[in-house]
Amino acid sequence: MGKKSKDKEGNSGRCEGTLKVIGTGPGSLDELSARAKDALTHADVIIGYGTYIDLISSLIEDKLIVRSKMREEVLRAKEAIRRAINGEKVAMVSGGDSGIYAMAGLVLELLETKEFKDAATGLKVEIVPGLPAFVSAASLLGAPLMHDFASISLSDLLTSWEVITKRIDAAASADFVIILYNPRSKGRTTQLPEAVKIISTHRDPSTPVGIVKNSSRANEELSLTTLEQVSEEFESIDMSTIVIIGNSSTFVSSSRMITPRGYKDIK
Amino acid sequence: MGKKSKDKEGNSGRCEGTLKVIGTGPGSLDELSARAKDALTHADVIIGYGTYIDLISSLIEDKLIVRSKMREEVLRAKEAIRRAINGEKVAMVSGGDSGIYAMAGLVLELLETKEFKDAATGLKVEIVPGLPAFVSAASLLGAPLMHDFASISLSDLLTSWEVITKRIDAAASADFVIILYNPRSKGRTTQLPEAVKIISTHRDPSTPVGIVKNSSRANEELSLTTLEQVSEEFESIDMSTIVIIGNSSTFVSSSRMITPRGYKDIK
Repeated sequence: MGKKSKDKEGNSGRCEGTLKVIGTGPGSLDELSARAKDALTHADVIIGYGTYIDLISSLIEDKLIVRSKMREEVLRAKEAIRRAINGEKVAMVSGGDSGIYAMAGLVLELLETKEFKDAATGLKVEIVPGLPAFVSAASLLGAPLMHDFASISLSDLLTSWEVITKRIDAAASADFVIILYNPRSKGRTTQLPEAVKIISTHRDPSTPVGIVKNSSRANEELSLTTLEQVSEEFESIDMSTIVIIGNSSTFVSSSRMITPRGYKDIK
Repeated sequence: MGKKSKDKEGNSGRCEGTLKVIGTGPGSLDELSARAKDALTHADVIIGYGTYIDLISSLIEDKLIVRSKMREEVLRAKEAIRRAINGEKVAMVSGGDSGIYAMAGLVLELLETKEFKDAATGLKVEIVPGLPAFVSAASLLGAPLMHDFASISLSDLLTSWEVITKRIDAAASADFVIILYNPRSKGRTTQLPEAVKIISTHRDPSTPVGIVKNSSRANEELSLTTLEQVSEEFESIDMSTIVIIGNSSTFVSSSRMITPRGYKDIK
């Protein structure tokens, strides 16, 4: 194994600009790391989806801000790369972590394409991680992730529903705690009921289900329910909601969702 | 769904003490959230495994520090609870996140036992999340977690190997990116080769494997290899190492491990 510095691209290339892809955490600035805060305050320009920009607005008042819309991820990433190539210090922000269903991979993919490969030689690119939304959600519910877990996005815009259902089935059959990302949107309402149906073929109806909407934000909402009753919550679940389904050992006590790690000497 | 404040236990009970179970992130203080830092600096006593205490020592010089050994998790959690019941402001620390294979679940489980249930009524307990080690590791490797992933601990001290292998097989068969926690220790060397063997029955020998040891610490080491060559790295892998195995689309380019999210318009 070799040692490697975080800034592996160095500064030796043609580019003077920098591109940092920053995870800003689930919502509260309180959850932001010192490293992410520092990266934001030293940037020339901040690029991101409007909601994420709003959540950190107090930190970046003096910056050039480029707001982008949902589903304009590719355009957004290209603009960030172009600006960095042109010498700007660019901070591209994602809510939660920047590398989980977020922008880091897209930026790194684009840097390998013909359009940017040569021009971006020597560009300093850094992925700055952030607290993922599901980790924040879990901490609010109790401790549901004390044992093996699987994270599945229910969005079938970029992935076939067949692949997604295969993953739901596999995760449920092997008793993973299951985290559902992007569970439901205005135009996508059938996936969540189907997912619950598949999971219910493997797990007891009384299995605890934790639902966290707008985790760590001012309008945060929590709910604890069960597999057999979760359909009552469907209406309130949206793209800012994380759903966590317990494994066969998960229980609820004192309004906390707990997955035991397996210590034998607890009575 | 109901609104709920983070401090749901309130201050109305008999106890004056507080118990915060804090994730201190993977290593660097730079990755610590403002919330975790604040919780540490306001504590009377810090309890944790020695390595984690060392990593945050500059922040807690004036505190009473109770160091504990590996495998003494139950004793450690009980001491934290007892001290909080006695009125102290207790910070119990875990490296990474406090709720992923860590101490949060154990503390919440113990609070529900006969030993503590009555005495802890009204005790203010808070789970403070931290950046998980695997998220930090992923950011150093590139962007391997852009698609569905499963996290599996290879430690069979608290879980049967049969359950673990079933999970490895299920995750591999459904094309999850796979994160292996606790891959290998001095006394536990057979599990990792077995895991790789199972995964190899479902995935191409050229599948990228990222290895990060001591993520975000001074002695951090990274390695990028493949399923067929990963055995060459086994000797250097220990309990402070995270192994990330790509899915069928994951590739390596410019020394970065990238799992595509699936955007069609990238060429």
